[in-house]
Amino acid sequence: MSGADIGLIGLGTMGSALALNIAESGFDIAVYNRSDDVTHAFVEEAGDLAERVTPAFSLEDLVGKLRSPRAIILMVPAGDIVDDQIERLRPLMNPEDMVIDAGNANFRDTIRRAKAAAAKGESFLGIGVSGGEEGARHGPSIMGGGTPEAWDRVEHILKAIAADHQGTACATYMGPDGAGHFVKAVHNGIEYADMQMIAEIYGVLRDGSGLSYAEIAAHFERWNNGPLQSYLVEISAKVAAAIDDRSGQPLLSVIEDTAGQKGTGRWTAIEAQHLAAPVNVIEAAVSARNISAQKDERAAGEQRFGAAPQHVDIDAETLEHALVAGKILCYAQGFEMLRKASAEFGWSLPLPEIARVWREGCIIRSAMLDDMAIALEDAPETPLHRAPPFADRLESALPALRKAVVAALGNGHPAPALSAALTYFDAIRTSRGTADMIQGQRDFFGWHGFARLDDEGRDHHGPWVTSN
Amino acid sequence: MSGADIGLIGLGTMGSALALNIAESGFDIAVYNRSDDVTHAFVEEAGDLAERVTPAFSLEDLVGKLRSPRAIILMVPAGDIVDDQIERLRPLMNPEDMVIDAGNANFRDTIRRAKAAAAKGESFLGIGVSGGEEGARHGPSIMGGGTPEAWDRVEHILKAIAADHQGTACATYMGPDGAGHFVKAVHNGIEYADMQMIAEIYGVLRDGSGLSYAEIAAHFERWNNGPLQSYLVEISAKVAAAIDDRSGQPLLSVIEDTAGQKGTGRWTAIEAQHLAAPVNVIEAAVSARNISAQKDERAAGEQRFGAAPQHVDIDAETLEHALVAGKILCYAQGFEMLRKASAEFGWSLPLPEIARVWREGCIIRSAMLDDMAIALEDAPETPLHRAPPFADRLESALPALRKAVVAALGNGHPAPALSAALTYFDAIRTSRGTADMIQGQRDFFGWHGFARLDDEGRDHHGPWVTSN
Repeated sequence: MSGADIGLIGLGTMGSALALNIAESGFDIAVYNRSDDVTHAFVEEAGDLAERVTPAFSLEDLVGKLRSPRAIILMVPAGDIVDDQIERLRPLMNPEDMVIDAGNANFRDTIRRAKAAAAKGESFLGIGVSGGEEGARHGPSIMGGGTPEAWDRVEHILKAIAADHQGTACATYMGPDGAGHFVKAVHNGIEYADMQMIAEIYGVLRDGSGLSYAEIAAHFERWNNGPLQSYLVEISAKVAAAIDDRSGQPLLSVIEDTAGQKGTGRWTAIEAQHLAAPVNVIEAAVSARNISAQKDERAAGEQRFGAAPQHVDIDAETLEHALVAGKILCYAQGFEMLRKASAEFGWSLPLPEIARVWREGCIIRSAMLDDMAIALEDAPETPLHRAPPFADRLESALPALRKAVVAALGNGHPAPALSAALTYFDAIRTSRGTADMIQGQRDFFGWHGFARLDDEGRDHHGPWVTSN
Repeated sequence: MSGADIGLIGLGTMGSALALNIAESGFDIAVYNRSDDVTHAFVEEAGDLAERVTPAFSLEDLVGKLRSPRAIILMVPAGDIVDDQIERLRPLMNPEDMVIDAGNANFRDTIRRAKAAAAKGESFLGIGVSGGEEGARHGPSIMGGGTPEAWDRVEHILKAIAADHQGTACATYMGPDGAGHFVKAVHNGIEYADMQMIAEIYGVLRDGSGLSYAEIAAHFERWNNGPLQSYLVEISAKVAAAIDDRSGQPLLSVIEDTAGQKGTGRWTAIEAQHLAAPVNVIEAAVSARNISAQKDERAAGEQRFGAAPQHVDIDAETLEHALVAGKILCYAQGFEMLRKASAEFGWSLPLPEIARVWREGCIIRSAMLDDMAIALEDAPETPLHRAPPFADRLESALPALRKAVVAALGNGHPAPALSAALTYFDAIRTSRGTADMIQGQRDFFGWHGFARLDDEGRDHHGPWVTSN
């Protein structure tokens, strides 16, 4: 029973933070980095926590310093490096020893690795860790995927280091193989959408209502005490209030309007396509980031077509409610995507638990998620936008969303995510849509057949002359 | 020099049509199907054309009936079957003999197959064939990918069977390996978007203006004589005018409003994500089909939130111009996606030629493509929406698009594709956007850094206290 409780490979920003969190939570941890200098520096900077940290200088050394059955966290860049590490580690370990990939793996890779491990009787977990460096250091949100047995063995460590929400740890078993990394991906997609909708509201306040940055900050701060209470609204207030050290001007006024991305929102959009899950708010957010990167093209466009955003008369309260409605619809899409994935991959994803695990430690943490957990528990088969109490809230906030979108689009404000939320709402509550025209066209040019309203069959045809 | 000019494997709907087209164009063709019955039936039904058709009853037989160097078209379901056929054919053929995959291959598979063939010195082409059965039989649009030498060898056949536009065949070499199949995929994505925008306009006419199906048909018919002249608008008029044989009612009134799809629009959306190419009109169209399939959910939504589309006062001329603007923006996105892919994959895609090859034979054929070919030739570096004469046309049609979208969204009509086009326009002509807020947030929670407007560097930070 001698040796460290757990090992960790990869002392980059996230790995270091997680290792210190583990040590601070009272576990002995052995750490390894391919560069010895990094390992030495880490131990030096660990301060009081160094007594719980055992440095290792080779994989053999690391494995030797862990007690059996071993558990080693990989915190290395996603992709081939993970496969490479597993391949080098495995000959040194026993089958019951566990590898835990805590990086940003694509869930399809995690499924593949889990299957390969299972075939050899080896223990493997893929966990999504959310909350950035700050979260990793002081309490992330952890979404686990793998066998229940593997999860059970390290759950006490993962719960100890995770964020806490009213006494419950934000570390949850999501399901087999890639389930944890998949839930993390959807989290990231929703994060993109949340941020984009906030940016659109900010744009209407700035360019439409002509508010100062300080006034905008005050609105966000106030909203953070209402139904929009959330980390992202909270920091939006701080960002809008911040003053640039160099120029003395509001910080936002000197930040270039080109959004970066690490591609995680994109993966959510791609998987949604594979699942035929409509997540048009997330798609709009990813698309908006791509367009923001085309700064020269946007300048050329303005030169050709004239400056866009016009003054628009809309009160801040309407914008607040518009954001409430947009957020409910965006989360409804995200949870429906999770539901589809759960069926597709046979995961039995615990939707209420997902709302709870996002409640603290991660970027999209918000008060609304509390109610979402309850709603998904009380009406497990109902999409969030129709489930109590969100159906009522949506109904009361929807006119504000409609008013805000009409005002924005009518006056040249790009509001792709908010308008996507609105068109989603209108489409998903329209019993008789317009796809009859699409089916008529498809049958005309491709003899694809259509379903009739007055008949069960799906392969009816129009009276067109065809070569069939 | 004895033997047939070309071979074809796979006598399904598309393969049969293409084989008859080849025979009718004056070439001797040897055909093979894995079921001899199908082959016999094909020859029997070929009528006068049978004299140019040589049936073969094994791959060896097929290869033996072709003159050297041989060329064999595969018209089999996309995927593993193509690899399987190539694997079985190749030992029977010489390296200079050519395999032509004319099916609906994913262009990434075509790249892989082209590279594998090149490594062995074997000749291979991947061609996208558009226009459905009717096109395949009487003149499709053909988009070729592979080595120029391979293309040159069969170009005379492909041009002979292709659609004709003012004396020019719609069969064009697009570039290396997967270029042809990629261009075909973007065609399909645009097809989805064109159809969806038409369906949205149809919805406003039907539910907003309360027009009869006959009145709607009359509008589409009239529009087909103006700037919207296109196959899809033409058939939309016919679809709207059609009377159901069984009920005597307008056909559209009995067609279920759930759109099917074979997934080709989805692939375009996925590849656009990989390329970071904003194609939000195509995404909206795919998403709308997915939502249309959720008929029960839409009915439940209507029950909960009330019927959606309200009367809206908008004249047909405004809707016509709105569709013109939406179409220009959608095609601008499609061509920009092609431009990005061209750079990414090193293809040198001939954008004006792509507009021309779509001019006849395929589903999205339209008069507008003539002008697009000229615009892309005259201003090769300029996105279509800023290139003459489309910048002028867009400028004059844009107010109608804005009016239509505001009217639709303001009154509960789901118009996701048209509103996506509008938000794209506003975003791409706004020099100062709102991504400064997103960059501020990202720096706050993840220390990601941002670019400043007054400085070249990209790694500036806000004055937040962090653990860094």
